[in-house]
Amino acid sequence: MLELGGNVLGFSEANSSSTAKGESVADTVRVVGAYADIIAMRHPKEGAPLVAAQKSIVPVINAGDGGHNHPTQTLTDLLTISCEKGRLDNLCIGLCGDLKFGRTVHSLITAMSRYKNIKLVLISPKELKTPEYIKQDIIEKNKIEYIETNDIEEYIDKLDILYMTRVQKERFFDEADYIRFKDYYILNKEKLKNAKQDLTIMHPLPRVNEISVDVDDDPRAAYFRQVKYGKYIRMALILKMLEV
Amino acid sequence: MLELGGNVLGFSEANSSSTAKGESVADTVRVVGAYADIIAMRHPKEGAPLVAAQKSIVPVINAGDGGHNHPTQTLTDLLTISCEKGRLDNLCIGLCGDLKFGRTVHSLITAMSRYKNIKLVLISPKELKTPEYIKQDIIEKNKIEYIETNDIEEYIDKLDILYMTRVQKERFFDEADYIRFKDYYILNKEKLKNAKQDLTIMHPLPRVNEISVDVDDDPRAAYFRQVKYGKYIRMALILKMLEV
Amino acid sequence: MLELGGNVLGFSEANSSSTAKGESVADTVRVVGAYADIIAMRHPKEGAPLVAAQKSIVPVINAGDGGHNHPTQTLTDLLTISCEKGRLDNLCIGLCGDLKFGRTVHSLITAMSRYKNIKLVLISPKELKTPEYIKQDIIEKNKIEYIETNDIEEYIDKLDILYMTRVQKERFFDEADYIRFKDYYILNKEKLKNAKQDLTIMHPLPRVNEISVDVDDDPRAAYFRQVKYGKYIRMALILKMLEV
Repeated sequence: MLELGGNVLGFSEANSSSTAKGESVADTVRVVGAYADIIAMRHPKEGAPLVAAQKSIVPVINAGDGGHNHPTQTLTDLLTISCEKGRLDNLCIGLCGDLKFGRTVHSLITAMSRYKNIKLVLISPKELKTPEYIKQDIIEKNKIEYIETNDIEEYIDKLDILYMTRVQKERFFDEADYIRFKDYYILNKEKLKNAKQDLTIMHPLPRVNEISVDVDDDPRAAYFRQVKYGKYIRMALILKMLEV
Repeated sequence: MLELGGNVLGFSEANSSSTAKGESVADTVRVVGAYADIIAMRHPKEGAPLVAAQKSIVPVINAGDGGHNHPTQTLTDLLTISCEKGRLDNLCIGLCGDLKFGRTVHSLITAMSRYKNIKLVLISPKELKTPEYIKQDIIEKNKIEYIETNDIEEYIDKLDILYMTRVQKERFFDEADYIRFKDYYILNKEKLKNAKQDLTIMHPLPRVNEISVDVDDDPRAAYFRQVKYGKYIRMALILKMLEV
Repeated sequence: MLELGGNVLGFSEANSSSTAKGESVADTVRVVGAYADIIAMRHPKEGAPLVAAQKSIVPVINAGDGGHNHPTQTLTDLLTISCEKGRLDNLCIGLCGDLKFGRTVHSLITAMSRYKNIKLVLISPKELKTPEYIKQDIIEKNKIEYIETNDIEEYIDKLDILYMTRVQKERFFDEADYIRFKDYYILNKEKLKNAKQDLTIMHPLPRVNEISVDVDDDPRAAYFRQVKYGKYIRMALILKMLEV
């Protein structure tokens, strides 16, 4: 936003005076809309940005609502794939980590289902497998070929893209489960030895241990470039919404 | 401020490094004054902005000091009345809610006492009535006609302005009192049926339950417009203080 | 930064989403570097800005790392001395307070050791004396004349500069020690009666009780002017690092 010559107002913070006094999301966006030209809302409650968008007089960007959606992350992922591979179709995409709760993964699968000849390799421990509703309603309905495995190396030589994800503590009720799964996959140089030379390794960041730092200098590591793509796509989205 | 081409520096936050180290208000404003052209201070202690103004080399705006004053809110209220009604005199003003602790109400009564032919309808539960010192020193001294009632509908057909306020939790020592009073008045469409067609409904915001959302789309609901007036009056105040 | 026409992005806060998720300093600076042209890092861990500078693609300013260094404070102190005295050599400098843990004092001694004919008066309770490694490796190695005393008034008539410091709570394991030492020195008008007319009194701020407010209006009190010098030197540093 700043690069566009605009400014950022910090509203809606968890402990800010108005929300702590019990103000509703609907009231907050009407008040903020009197000051701002656009609202980017990150909210712990699913659906809050939808309510906001219905009540606001200025455009509202959903910047993540609880375990639900995070649309600008998915736009970032699409721009990254498009720029790194030069195409959005004819791709074999490995998705690795927490495929059960990972909202970025569910959104990316949904987005990629619109393109031709996509193949998916779903890599997760069996307790964190892709939910049935994603498999039935998105993957199978769109006749996308897919394989499930818990071994990150088994199909690594087939992949055009490897999308790593973090196991997120807040998605688990039981901390022991979190500790068991958090270091289940650690991508390192050794595991990449059979991978394609033009593999693109992505990660929504922040990473914890899922990718060893010895991978950072590999030209296939695209996750820091992904941040730049994220900035550009959000700049584009703001311009689009402001009809500049 | 941003619309004026300026910028905002975030100082004086409750947990900021300097104040947590025991720095005094006087020192803080002298340091901040080295960076900023103007200081807007919101402080939990009554009188802190007064001390600040005496020590500061740049202008200080009191943006609320504890239970004491909140002058830019009152300027906002005056601009709202002036713009919505076209006048600041010859008005019958209903003030409803916590008239005992509500600092915005006390300030508004004081400000309106300077104008001609003002009538006040003071609507509150008897435990939250307007304090005697406000009635004697301001209302009676200025020979302002007033009525006290605990029934919001009794005089609603006489009002040009209805100023609703929130019952604030932090003003009560006993939480049970707060719970008893917080939903004492809930303005809704039904209660407005005898009100004038050009009534102006105001509220300093944030609201909790005092005004039902079914009133929001009524053209007489001025409380979201009030936010815009607040922005304009603060822009004007900043320009005035900077002598632009 | 704002006066240079730039803007500040608030990253790296203790509770921000990424660092709370376990992100490393190295990853944080690479992500922030995608958005910002320069990074100013204040970090509780010693050495964090060094790691950051090695990994970052944009310049990193160390704005204080734990008990280690605070280089822009020292640049501020040097500019203050240079502007107030017109020279950086031929000075008798008193350093008073916590000389054991005070990082600003250690850095200033190191910086002044490069200039000619510097004399130091080290004023502290014996429990908070200058560490041996500073005395041997910096002061004695550079053949700087020095005296140690615990009496602030003993040599006050000799001083060109009196640098007061705060006793910092977080440096003590035992709170009783902190309480014993925090008001050990309180500079006031009385204690200044034998001081030179052109003495320069400095303090890195925030102050607690080390300097009585009755000294504030004395023209020799330079500590609020020091804040302005700090702003100018940081502006200069940013311009230098951006090669503007």
